[in-house]
Amino acid sequence: MITSPSSLRRSERSRRAILEAALELCTEKGYGRVTVEAIAARAGVSKKTIYRWWPSKSAVILEAFTDALVGTTPFVDTGDIAADLRANVMGAVKLLSTPPYGPAYAGILSEVHHDDALAETVRTKLIDPRFEEAVDRLRRAQEQGQIPPDADLPLAVEMLYGPVYYRHVLRKPVQDEETIAALVAHVLRALGAPPEP
Amino acid sequence: MITSPSSLRRSERSRRAILEAALELCTEKGYGRVTVEAIAARAGVSKKTIYRWWPSKSAVILEAFTDALVGTTPFVDTGDIAADLRANVMGAVKLLSTPPYGPAYAGILSEVHHDDALAETVRTKLIDPRFEEAVDRLRRAQEQGQIPPDADLPLAVEMLYGPVYYRHVLRKPVQDEETIAALVAHVLRALGAPPEP
Repeated sequence: MITSPSSLRRSERSRRAILEAALELCTEKGYGRVTVEAIAARAGVSKKTIYRWWPSKSAVILEAFTDALVGTTPFVDTGDIAADLRANVMGAVKLLSTPPYGPAYAGILSEVHHDDALAETVRTKLIDPRFEEAVDRLRRAQEQGQIPPDADLPLAVEMLYGPVYYRHVLRKPVQDEETIAALVAHVLRALGAPPEP
Repeated sequence: MITSPSSLRRSERSRRAILEAALELCTEKGYGRVTVEAIAARAGVSKKTIYRWWPSKSAVILEAFTDALVGTTPFVDTGDIAADLRANVMGAVKLLSTPPYGPAYAGILSEVHHDDALAETVRTKLIDPRFEEAVDRLRRAQEQGQIPPDADLPLAVEMLYGPVYYRHVLRKPVQDEETIAALVAHVLRALGAPPEP
């Protein structure tokens, strides 16, 4: 199929309108009460348009959350692995403590346990790519001699992000900057990295 | 109120019958389809009896899960903090990978995000006491000189259990013995503990 530039532009505009409508409705009604029908009405598209691109409202909200997460927590390389990890994890914590993102992601996770297709989408669209990016950032630090060559990088990523999930799903108070700094310092020490100057 | 020994015994017998019925129904129907009515019928008690002790089916299942977790993962002190942490975390991972416990706990967590009372019960009945026990075990290791006196013990508990929650809620494959051993070794190194002999 040949798609003209103008129809591609229109699709991206619709996509953005749909994701924005989904987030607005999460804020107004809470994740549980959002429906594909309401998203369609708010975005000014048909339900059919939404179902052409997404299998469920959860998939729409997952894409909106993923866009926000990727946008606010890039894996930058300033040459300082500790500072870059602090910025990255703190960015994720801040997003999770900002409505509607935190409650929306909690809503998605609450469906993961009984929705196999959604669980697969969460892993392939959100978790796996982010996990790989985090490992890549650690690998660059390894290449720069900031982390020993034999360090277990995937384990480090779980030690960094595990506590964020722990507090999020249990609805404990989120980490502050100081706690994130301590967490990052502990993970780097666990990997055998020399202490920060 | 004075309660006779026999009525106390009967209550404990009913409690156990109710918890067992709840777990059986989780296995047979899945967490989402369990009802207080079905638990009552299976346990041979009235719905009123259940509602006298628990506010919801989630609270019943939470108590059954907590009993199982406490029973299978005691915080023992053999004098070897690394071995004791490995046994403790591995016990929790094994319980979570055993139906109906893992799916049941996932079901409970899925309601935590929108049920404030359940969230509070999970924290006060399950999470906070277990967290304190873990910190206490680390503190005894500290007193025995296995962990430096200035170590951040609560952070260590989150680094140990965070990755377990991370995999559980995302339905990733659970950790094996080797991964748990690596995790424990990393957390102890992060605290500045000397390497195992």
